[in-house]
Amino acid sequence: MIRNFKITLSYDGSKYSGWQKQGNTPNTSQGKLEKVLSAMFGTAVEIQGSGRTDAGVHAAAQVANFKVNTKATPADICKYLRNYLPQDIGILSVEEVPAQFHARLTAKRKTYRYRVWNSDVPNVFERKYLYILPEELDVDAMRSAIPYFLGEHDFRAFCSNPDFKKSSVRTIYAMELEQLGHELRLTVTGNGFLYNMVRLMMGTLLQVGKGTLRADEIPEILESKERWRAGPMAPACGLCMMEVNYE
Amino acid sequence: MIRNFKITLSYDGSKYSGWQKQGNTPNTSQGKLEKVLSAMFGTAVEIQGSGRTDAGVHAAAQVANFKVNTKATPADICKYLRNYLPQDIGILSVEEVPAQFHARLTAKRKTYRYRVWNSDVPNVFERKYLYILPEELDVDAMRSAIPYFLGEHDFRAFCSNPDFKKSSVRTIYAMELEQLGHELRLTVTGNGFLYNMVRLMMGTLLQVGKGTLRADEIPEILESKERWRAGPMAPACGLCMMEVNYE
Repeated sequence: MIRNFKITLSYDGSKYSGWQKQGNTPNTSQGKLEKVLSAMFGTAVEIQGSGRTDAGVHAAAQVANFKVNTKATPADICKYLRNYLPQDIGILSVEEVPAQFHARLTAKRKTYRYRVWNSDVPNVFERKYLYILPEELDVDAMRSAIPYFLGEHDFRAFCSNPDFKKSSVRTIYAMELEQLGHELRLTVTGNGFLYNMVRLMMGTLLQVGKGTLRADEIPEILESKERWRAGPMAPACGLCMMEVNYE
Repeated sequence: MIRNFKITLSYDGSKYSGWQKQGNTPNTSQGKLEKVLSAMFGTAVEIQGSGRTDAGVHAAAQVANFKVNTKATPADICKYLRNYLPQDIGILSVEEVPAQFHARLTAKRKTYRYRVWNSDVPNVFERKYLYILPEELDVDAMRSAIPYFLGEHDFRAFCSNPDFKKSSVRTIYAMELEQLGHELRLTVTGNGFLYNMVRLMMGTLLQVGKGTLRADEIPEILESKERWRAGPMAPACGLCMMEVNYE
């Protein structure tokens, strides 16, 4: 019987060329998972991720699903994956789900976090998960920019893919900027994100923090729908996919 | 004028052969620091650490000092070190201190932390700083063993150096075992620690947690002064030097 399994997993993206399997780039999280699953079931297994993460981006809880004809239990699959996956990919859970569950198409909300280490005092233990930016930032100004992103907008100016043909309208439900010691932590929840969208929003907020952009210029940037108007993309290493919600 | 500088630094010990410089092992935290400082001042600089950490052990705030004839300010030294040290060694601060300050000899208290990840749910982000031990542990039993270590004891049974000629009497001021989700975190403060002492105490506590040793056998182990009576040494990666106090 063909069964559908949902996997929730974390990964340290430092050494990967992103989530999605690519022709000549075998070193992706999806590629590693498919290889181990295909070996487990003796047949080619294809998995669907909730969304792609770029090269170097981390995941605390990415979600994926795959269908396979097997008698294996979720616990069997979890154990096998934990035994054979590299240490920088961690399986949090495996569950059996109804046939119509699709990690990407049925996702309702996603949450990403972007972490900036805003100090010249080094953080040796978490450096791979932080964007190191010792420059002085006006955090209040950055916070004042957040409301412009909230709600439904056409985020085309915050998308790095010029060939993107589908709708670039997305809804941001929540966006919060916390200051925790030397760390600035942006947490953003939306119904979906365009290619590089979170990194471009963060890059734009950082321009506001540096005083090279005013918060109230953000509506113009959104309206322009032109990528060059947004700030430079913040580096991949600071970004982490936190949660995917299916309600 | 010869001046005395105190450095507080953190390091990710994963790739180092410990703190102390050794004949054929240039890859130590002390060795890296001395190399950069010697280059900075154009003369051989020798540094004193508050204590050695073993290969693979981390430090959140190790303290060291060195004397040199220079006009450089602490800020100059801090900046130079941050520029030239590898990313897994982080200078937290540099201060000028009186001539009699000696990082090891004038230290009054040290605090170490040992972290156990007590779950088969992987932690990909902190795995290098944890001892992964999914086995079920009786945490209450482990806590009941703590009072036997507190206070002044001869810790010879908790020392891996059979040739140690000096007094092996040490005082443990505080010892706490916290349970934070899947993590078990032992924090211990004493006036000093013998070679491998924290890892041996942790290994012994873990035996109590596994039920292979009773907490009330610890006084006998201490009295025996024999290393084989203590539990097996817990792995280096879970240990971190947290603080050195000079009052």
